Amino acid sequence: MHAINKQVDKPKSNCGVVGVFGHPDASIFAYQALYALQHRGQESSGIVSSDGEKVYRHLGMGLVNDAFSDISILKGLKGQLAVGHNRYSTTGSTMLHNAQPFLVNFKEGPLAISHNGNFVNSKSVRSRLVADGSIFQTTSDTEVVLHLMARSREETIVKRIRDAFAQLKGAYSMVLLTRESIIGIRDPRGWRPICLGRKDGAHFIVSESCALDLIGAEYLREIEPGEIVIIDKSGVNSYWLEEQVERKACIFEYVYFSRPDSKIFDENVDKARRKLGKNLALEHPVDADIVIAVPDSSNTAALGYANRSGIKFEIGLIRNHYVGRTFIHPDQSERDFKVRVKFNPVEGVLKGRRVVVVDDSIVRGTTLKQLTKMLRKAGAKEVHVRVSSPPIISPCFYGMDFPTMDELIASNKTIEEIRKYLGVDSLGYLSLEGMVDAVSNDQKGFCTACFTGDYPLPPEEASNKLKYEDAGTISNNTY
Amino acid sequence: MHAINKQVDKPKSNCGVVGVFGHPDASIFAYQALYALQHRGQESSGIVSSDGEKVYRHLGMGLVNDAFSDISILKGLKGQLAVGHNRYSTTGSTMLHNAQPFLVNFKEGPLAISHNGNFVNSKSVRSRLVADGSIFQTTSDTEVVLHLMARSREETIVKRIRDAFAQLKGAYSMVLLTRESIIGIRDPRGWRPICLGRKDGAHFIVSESCALDLIGAEYLREIEPGEIVIIDKSGVNSYWLEEQVERKACIFEYVYFSRPDSKIFDENVDKARRKLGKNLALEHPVDADIVIAVPDSSNTAALGYANRSGIKFEIGLIRNHYVGRTFIHPDQSERDFKVRVKFNPVEGVLKGRRVVVVDDSIVRGTTLKQLTKMLRKAGAKEVHVRVSSPPIISPCFYGMDFPTMDELIASNKTIEEIRKYLGVDSLGYLSLEGMVDAVSNDQKGFCTACFTGDYPLPPEEASNKLKYEDAGTISNNTY
Amino acid sequence: MHAINKQVDKPKSNCGVVGVFGHPDASIFAYQALYALQHRGQESSGIVSSDGEKVYRHLGMGLVNDAFSDISILKGLKGQLAVGHNRYSTTGSTMLHNAQPFLVNFKEGPLAISHNGNFVNSKSVRSRLVADGSIFQTTSDTEVVLHLMARSREETIVKRIRDAFAQLKGAYSMVLLTRESIIGIRDPRGWRPICLGRKDGAHFIVSESCALDLIGAEYLREIEPGEIVIIDKSGVNSYWLEEQVERKACIFEYVYFSRPDSKIFDENVDKARRKLGKNLALEHPVDADIVIAVPDSSNTAALGYANRSGIKFEIGLIRNHYVGRTFIHPDQSERDFKVRVKFNPVEGVLKGRRVVVVDDSIVRGTTLKQLTKMLRKAGAKEVHVRVSSPPIISPCFYGMDFPTMDELIASNKTIEEIRKYLGVDSLGYLSLEGMVDAVSNDQKGFCTACFTGDYPLPPEEASNKLKYEDAGTISNNTY
Amino acid sequence: MHAINKQVDKPKSNCGVVGVFGHPDASIFAYQALYALQHRGQESSGIVSSDGEKVYRHLGMGLVNDAFSDISILKGLKGQLAVGHNRYSTTGSTMLHNAQPFLVNFKEGPLAISHNGNFVNSKSVRSRLVADGSIFQTTSDTEVVLHLMARSREETIVKRIRDAFAQLKGAYSMVLLTRESIIGIRDPRGWRPICLGRKDGAHFIVSESCALDLIGAEYLREIEPGEIVIIDKSGVNSYWLEEQVERKACIFEYVYFSRPDSKIFDENVDKARRKLGKNLALEHPVDADIVIAVPDSSNTAALGYANRSGIKFEIGLIRNHYVGRTFIHPDQSERDFKVRVKFNPVEGVLKGRRVVVVDDSIVRGTTLKQLTKMLRKAGAKEVHVRVSSPPIISPCFYGMDFPTMDELIASNKTIEEIRKYLGVDSLGYLSLEGMVDAVSNDQKGFCTACFTGDYPLPPEEASNKLKYEDAGTISNNTY
Repeated sequence: MHAINKQVDKPKSNCGVVGVFGHPDASIFAYQALYALQHRGQESSGIVSSDGEKVYRHLGMGLVNDAFSDISILKGLKGQLAVGHNRYSTTGSTMLHNAQPFLVNFKEGPLAISHNGNFVNSKSVRSRLVADGSIFQTTSDTEVVLHLMARSREETIVKRIRDAFAQLKGAYSMVLLTRESIIGIRDPRGWRPICLGRKDGAHFIVSESCALDLIGAEYLREIEPGEIVIIDKSGVNSYWLEEQVERKACIFEYVYFSRPDSKIFDENVDKARRKLGKNLALEHPVDADIVIAVPDSSNTAALGYANRSGIKFEIGLIRNHYVGRTFIHPDQSERDFKVRVKFNPVEGVLKGRRVVVVDDSIVRGTTLKQLTKMLRKAGAKEVHVRVSSPPIISPCFYGMDFPTMDELIASNKTIEEIRKYLGVDSLGYLSLEGMVDAVSNDQKGFCTACFTGDYPLPPEEASNKLKYEDAGTISNNTY
Repeated sequence: MHAINKQVDKPKSNCGVVGVFGHPDASIFAYQALYALQHRGQESSGIVSSDGEKVYRHLGMGLVNDAFSDISILKGLKGQLAVGHNRYSTTGSTMLHNAQPFLVNFKEGPLAISHNGNFVNSKSVRSRLVADGSIFQTTSDTEVVLHLMARSREETIVKRIRDAFAQLKGAYSMVLLTRESIIGIRDPRGWRPICLGRKDGAHFIVSESCALDLIGAEYLREIEPGEIVIIDKSGVNSYWLEEQVERKACIFEYVYFSRPDSKIFDENVDKARRKLGKNLALEHPVDADIVIAVPDSSNTAALGYANRSGIKFEIGLIRNHYVGRTFIHPDQSERDFKVRVKFNPVEGVLKGRRVVVVDDSIVRGTTLKQLTKMLRKAGAKEVHVRVSSPPIISPCFYGMDFPTMDELIASNKTIEEIRKYLGVDSLGYLSLEGMVDAVSNDQKGFCTACFTGDYPLPPEEASNKLKYEDAGTISNNTY
Repeated sequence: MHAINKQVDKPKSNCGVVGVFGHPDASIFAYQALYALQHRGQESSGIVSSDGEKVYRHLGMGLVNDAFSDISILKGLKGQLAVGHNRYSTTGSTMLHNAQPFLVNFKEGPLAISHNGNFVNSKSVRSRLVADGSIFQTTSDTEVVLHLMARSREETIVKRIRDAFAQLKGAYSMVLLTRESIIGIRDPRGWRPICLGRKDGAHFIVSESCALDLIGAEYLREIEPGEIVIIDKSGVNSYWLEEQVERKACIFEYVYFSRPDSKIFDENVDKARRKLGKNLALEHPVDADIVIAVPDSSNTAALGYANRSGIKFEIGLIRNHYVGRTFIHPDQSERDFKVRVKFNPVEGVLKGRRVVVVDDSIVRGTTLKQLTKMLRKAGAKEVHVRVSSPPIISPCFYGMDFPTMDELIASNKTIEEIRKYLGVDSLGYLSLEGMVDAVSNDQKGFCTACFTGDYPLPPEEASNKLKYEDAGTISNNTY
Repeated sequence: MHAINKQVDKPKSNCGVVGVFGHPDASIFAYQALYALQHRGQESSGIVSSDGEKVYRHLGMGLVNDAFSDISILKGLKGQLAVGHNRYSTTGSTMLHNAQPFLVNFKEGPLAISHNGNFVNSKSVRSRLVADGSIFQTTSDTEVVLHLMARSREETIVKRIRDAFAQLKGAYSMVLLTRESIIGIRDPRGWRPICLGRKDGAHFIVSESCALDLIGAEYLREIEPGEIVIIDKSGVNSYWLEEQVERKACIFEYVYFSRPDSKIFDENVDKARRKLGKNLALEHPVDADIVIAVPDSSNTAALGYANRSGIKFEIGLIRNHYVGRTFIHPDQSERDFKVRVKFNPVEGVLKGRRVVVVDDSIVRGTTLKQLTKMLRKAGAKEVHVRVSSPPIISPCFYGMDFPTMDELIASNKTIEEIRKYLGVDSLGYLSLEGMVDAVSNDQKGFCTACFTGDYPLPPEEASNKLKYEDAGTISNNTY
C-alpha cells in the first residue's frame, strides 16, 4: 500500500491576493477574502497587518483554515491595514520559506508584498542585483521587486514603484502594504484579475469579486492594466506605470480557473463560461441522448451546450468533495484509483445512452481517459467529448502552472490521435474564434498564448523555473 | 471576531460501517470504504483488524484522512479481517471515547463492533444490565449489544446474536469482527442500508454501494432485513434473527442522505431522487423561467423537476467546497455569513428571472430563508420553492439526527406560514404518496415516520439520549 | 541512521497515584501532584474529577506536561474531587487504551480508579468473570477490580470494596473516585507507598510525600497496609480490609525507585539510601582515591560510602538531562552511544585515579559495563564497583518492572563472573542484612523477593503478563 | 489557575554552533552535536547541509528533539557538509523567523550561517546598509554579516570575510557553510568558545568539546581568537582577521554556562569550577556542619569548597529534571512555586545543621531567596551562602543574556543588603582575583565586564536591541 495524491491533471495555478484598508479589524476580512479565494492556492496562506506603527505577520502551510487555525492568530494581527496571500502548490515539496506575503524592512520601513503572476525577466534582473551585492532568501521571483524598490534612488513610493517595474516584465497583480498604505499594482497587460471593493468606508483589493461577496462588500471596479492604486488616509488615489500597451487578459481564467460566481475583467465568469458551451454546441453538434459535465468546473459550459443543442443535461458523474491524500494497495492501478476516488459514474443515467461529455480543457488527457473508460463501463453506448476551449499546445509564462510541452497532449498529438487515446466516439474542441467570441463582451485584448504559442511578451529565459536558486535551497520548517 | 461552524441545517445522521474478509491487506480496503462513506460520518473514524490470532485497533478523531494520517497506521492493522466505522458528530463535544469500532474481550475472545442505527429500548436494557453488575464505559447504546452477547448462555455465535437481539428493539445495520469471522447483521425492519460485495475472493460489507465502487468490488446484494451474514473460512453463510416483520427501510436515505451514485435497498439513489423531482413537478407546477437546485444534494431532484416541467435547468448557486470552521466579525450576521460562505448566487443567471428553487427537504428552514433572500438580492424576480419530500414533522428514533419537534419548522407552522417565513412567492412540498411512488420500484415497506409521526416501533423511552450516563462522563484524550 | 531509545537498564516500574478531596480546583492540585510524581511513570497521564454531579476525564500520552498541555484542559476538569495517574511504559507500544484513571458507570454511578501495583491472581479472577459474561476493554488487571465491585451484592461501598479485594491477591495502592468521595486503598502487605496530606481543609492521597511538598500540603501519615480511607463530606474515615498479615513493604523503593526527597513507609528515602552507602563501605572497603556515583540515583549512597570510608567524593560522571529519543549513524555502536548520550566522564577528575563507582543496583549490567569502559578511557587507573543492594536474582510480581530471569545478570553469573564481564578491578554488593539494616528504622517487614526469590505471595500464574488479552488487543488512537 | 514558566533567574545565554565537513551523513553528526549543546539554546534548532550542488535546510522550534522529530528529516538533509544552530530564548515570543542557520543566496551561491555572540555596532552598520538599499528580513544582527559579505568587492571568500568583519565589532564564534566548504570564524577577542575536532577523516567545529565526546570525535584544538578556519577538499586551512588584540575570553562560561565535562578555551571546565570553589573556601571560611550545592551547576564548586574547607559535602537539595511549563493555582505564590517545582530540600540532611550553600552566581537573587527560605523551613540551623564568582553588577554586550542593571541585585545593593534580602546568616562572594586565579591555567586574557563594568569593547549603541526593527516586525508561522 502506498499514498497517492489525487490531484488530477488540471492546470493548477496562480495565487490569490488580498488587501484591506480602513477597518479596525482588517485581518479578519483579509482572512475571509482568502477563504473565498481558496481555489487560487492551497499550499500556504499568510497575512501581514499594520496598525500604523508595528506590522504583524502570520504564515502557515496548507489551507486558510489550517494556517489560521485559531482566532487568537487573527486577533494578534492588529491594525487597520492588511494584505494576504494564498499560494498554490507547484511541486510535492511544500515550503513555508516561500510562503507570502513577504515582509522586509527597507529604508522607508516595513514593506509586505503579495504577488499573483510571473515575471519573464526576473532571472537576469536577479543576476544583476546579486552581482551588485544583494542577497536572496527565497527562490521566488517576487523577492526581486523588494530589492528593486529598496535600491531605487527615487524619493516617493510611486516613483519607486515605477522605477522598480520599469525593470521588470511579466504578469503581476500585486498588493503591497506599508505602515500606512495599501497599494494595488497591475501589470500593463493585465494578465491576472484584480479588483476594488468597498464596505462601510473600508476598501478592499481582491483577486476575484467572489471575495467581496463573502465579506459583504460592494464591487467597485477592476484595477486597470498598468494602474497603481494607493489607498491611505487621503483616500484612493490612482497612478500609472510608464508602459502603456494593449491589454492581454488571461482567457484561461474564464475557461477554467476563476470561480463561476466571480466577476473578473469586469465580466461575469459564469456568463462567459456558458457562452463557451453554447459556441461549442454550434461548432460541434452531435446526435446524442444526454449532455453531462466533468464536475464542477465544466458544469456551466455543459449547461450552455445542452441548452443550445437541445440535448438533455444530466448529472452523470458524482464528484467526491472529501478529497486529499489516499492510500492504495499495490494491486490497484494508481491512475484508475485517483480518478475513481474523485468521480463516480451514475449508472442509471448513463446506461444505454449516447453521452456528450463536456470538459473545459484537456491538459495531459490522463484523467479524461480514465473518466471516459468509467462512463463506458457504466453502460454508456457512445461517448462524445466536447471541450469548451481549443487544444492547449504551449506552456504559460505568466503564472498558469501548465506542464511542459512534452506533457501537453495537444502539443504532441493530432485531434484524431487524441480521440483514439481517449477511446471515444468523437472529440470536438472549441475554436479559438469561438472562444474569443464567448468572452469578448465589450472588452478586448486577451492572451491566448497557451492555445496559440503567440506570446505577448516572450520569456527572456528558457524556463520560468530559476535554475540557479532551485539548485540553491531546499528548506523546511517545523513548529 | 469569533468562530462559527458552518454546518447548515440538514439532518446529519447516521454512520458508515464496513467489513472486509479474506484479503491479506484487509485494512487498506476498510480504509478506502470508509473514505467513500465519509458523508455518513465526520466526527471520528476507526478500524479493527484481525490476523486470526491478534486483533489490532486504531481510532482517530476527524475525517478518515485525519484519523489515518500515515500509511504506517494501516500497515500496523494486520490481517485478513477488518471492520471500520465513520461516526457522525452529534454535538459540539467530540469524544474519542465514543469512537467505534468498539473492541472488547469476552469469553469467546475479542469482539469488535461497528453500528449504524439506534435502539429504542437500550435504556431499560442497560438499567437491567447495570443492576446485574455490568459496567459501562461509554454513553453509546451500542455497548449494550456487547454485554448481551457476553452474558448470553448460548453456545454458538449465531445463537448468542439471536439471544442478544431478541432483547433489543430498533434500527441496526452492524458489522462484527471476531478473530476469524466478519458478521453483518441487519434489524428485521431494515431501516439502514447495508450490502455485500466481492473482489478477488475477498468479501465486503458496506453501508452503501459507492464504497464497493471505489474499492473496485462487485455489488452482490443487500443484506436482508433480519438477516445475519457470517463470513469465515467456510464461506458466506446466512442466518436469520427470530423476529420477522414487514420491512421499514428509511425513505429519507433516498431523499437526502445516501450518495446519489450509490445503490441502496437494491435501487439506485439517483433514479429515485430524479423521480422525486419529476413527481414534484407534476404536483406543483409553476410558471417560471429557470429551475435551480440547492447544490449538491438537490441537484438530481432539480433536474427531474426541470425535465418534467420543461423549464430550463440552471446553476444559480455555487457551492464552496472548502468548508470548515470560519471566523467572523461581530458586525457580521452569523446567520447570513454561514450561508454565504457555503453558497454564492450567480447573478448573471438569476437577474430578472422567475426562479424555481428545488430543495430536498426543509428541517429548520433557516438556511433556505437566507438562500432565498440571497437569490432576491441577486435579482431574481420571483422565487418559488419546491421541496422533493413532504414536511418533516416528527423526530427520528432510528438513527437520523433531526432536531427536536420544537425546532422542526413544519411541526409548528402551516405551509402558508412557512412560505411567509421564507419570504417566497410560492412553496410546494411533494406529497407522501408522490414520495413513496418515486422510491417504490419493486420494493415496498418504507419508514416515513419523520413525515407522518407514524412510528413502526415506538420508542420505549422519552428520549434516545441516555440521561443517566450523560450526567456521568465527560471524557477527552490527547495523544 | 536510525533511532534509539536511550533508556538504560534500570528497573522502570510502578505508577504514581493521586487523590484530592475538598478543594474547588481539585484538578490543578492533582496535576501538580502528578508532576511531582513524574518519575513513577512517563507513558501516560490522566485525571478524573467530579463536581458531585458530573464527572470529567482527560487522558493523554507522554509526560504530565504533554498530556495536560493547556490550562483549559484543567479548567474543564471541574469539581472538588479528583484522582490522577501516571503510567509507566512497559513496552515500545504506548497505548492510550490502557491509560488510567479508568472510568466506568456501574449501578452506584460513575467510578474512577488509579492503581499502582500488580495482582498475582487477576488472570484466574478474570477468567471467572469472563465465563460469567463480563466483557473487558483493556489488558490491564486493574479492570478486574471494577467488575468485582460492580458485581458485588453488598450494599455499601466499603463492603463492596472488601468483597472485591477478598477475591484479589497482590500489590495495590489505589485511589478511587465516586461522585462524592475519594477512597484510598492499600493492600494488606503494603508493598507500594501511599500517604495522606492536608492543606487548607482539603485532603490529598499521593504515592510519595514529594507530591505534598510541591502542592504545599502537610504530610499526615501513611495509609496503613490493609487500610481503606474514605474521604467525603463527613471527613476522613478509616476502614480495614479483611486480611491481616505482616507488612511487606518494597525495599527496592528505598534502593532506587522513590525520589530521595520523599518520605515513604514513614521514613526519609534519603536517610535510608545514605545508610545503604555507609553499610556498603563497611562491608566492602577498598584502597582508592575517589568515590563517584552513577548519577543521580546513586548520589546519596555514594556520599554515604565516601563519608564512612573517608575517601573523597567526586563528580566523575556528568548526566545529560535533555534525554529522549536520539538518532544514530549505523557506524556508531548503539550500546556505546546510548550510554554516552546520558553520561559523560570528567577527565580531570578521573585521570590517574583509583576510582570507586557506587551504583544502586545492577539489572542487566550492560549500562554499567559501558560506563566503566568510559571511566577507563578517561584515565581511571583502577575501577572498583560497589553496589548498594544485593544481587537481583528474581523478577518482581508486585509492580516493579524487572526483566525476566534470563536477563538478570546476577541470576546467571557469579559475582566474579560479573566482575569480569564489567571489566573492573573489584566488585562488591551490599549484603541482604546490610540492606535490611539500613532501611529498618522502627519499621519492620520488607519484601526482598527480587534479591532472595522468597515471594511473600507466590504468583498464581506463570507470568504477570496476561497471555489471553495480550493476544487480544493492540490498540492505538490519534486525536 | 494560570501557567508559569519555571525558568529561574540564571543567565540564559548564548547559542550553540556546529559545523561538519567530510562525512557522507554530515547532518546526523550535526544533529548529535546540537543534542550535546542543548544547554546553550532551547528555543529553536536548525541544520543546513550541502551535497556540493544543492543545499538543504530544516528549522524547528523547541528542543533539538522537537525540531528534528523524525529521522526522515535528517535523511533529507543530504551531503557531506552541515552547519547547525541551537538558539536560546530571549523573550516570551518565540519566532521561527529568527531561527538559525540563516540561509541566503549571494553572488557566490548559497551561504548559511550560525552565530554565537553579539555585535556592538550592528545598528549603525545596518542603518548604513539600509540607506544603501539593503533589505532586512529578521531582527537579528547576524543578518548584517550576510549583507556585508554579499556587498564586498573582494574576490575570495577569505577576503570577503576579512572585509565584512573589519566593519563589525563584537563577539562572534561562527560557522559558515558554502556549497563546498565549512568555515569557522572567531572574533579577535575570542569571547565565545569554539573548537575543532576530527573523526574518521571528517572534521567538526563545535561550541564546546562535549559535542565531540558524544559524536566520538577527537578534540584537536581551539579555533584561536581572530582565526578563520576554512575546511574544504584541500584540507583545514587557517587565516586571520585583520584586527589583532588581546584575548578576552568570557570568564562566565567557566563560572556557569558551559557544561562541566567540556573543555573550553583549552581548559577543563570542571577543573576551573572546582578551583573556584577552593578559592572561595580560602576567602570565606565558615564554621558549619555541611556544604551543599544549588544543583547541578554549582555541584563542582561546592565539592571544591567542601574539600578545601574540610566540611562534609552533602546533597541537601534535590533537583527535579522533568521541568517545563507548570500551571498553578491563584492561591499559590508563583515565586515560591517555581522554585519548589525545581528544587526540594532533603529534610534528613538539613535538620539541625549549620549549612553552607554554594551557588555559582547571583543574578536577581529571587530564586536563592526562596531556596534559603526552603532550607530554613526544612530545619537548617544556620544558612551561609557562598558564591563562586564576584557580584554581577553590569550587563553583558557580548552574548550573555543578563537582565538590565536595574534587575541585577548586586548593582543596587551592598553585600550586607543582599545578605539581609536573602535572609541568611552570612554571605561571601569570591573576589575578582580569586576567580581569575582559578581559571588562569596557562592562559590569560578574560573578559570580566559583568563583574567590573570594564568593557573591552564598549557598545556603540545604547542597547543591543534594535529599536527600529523591533517596531517593524512581529512574525509567526504555523506548519
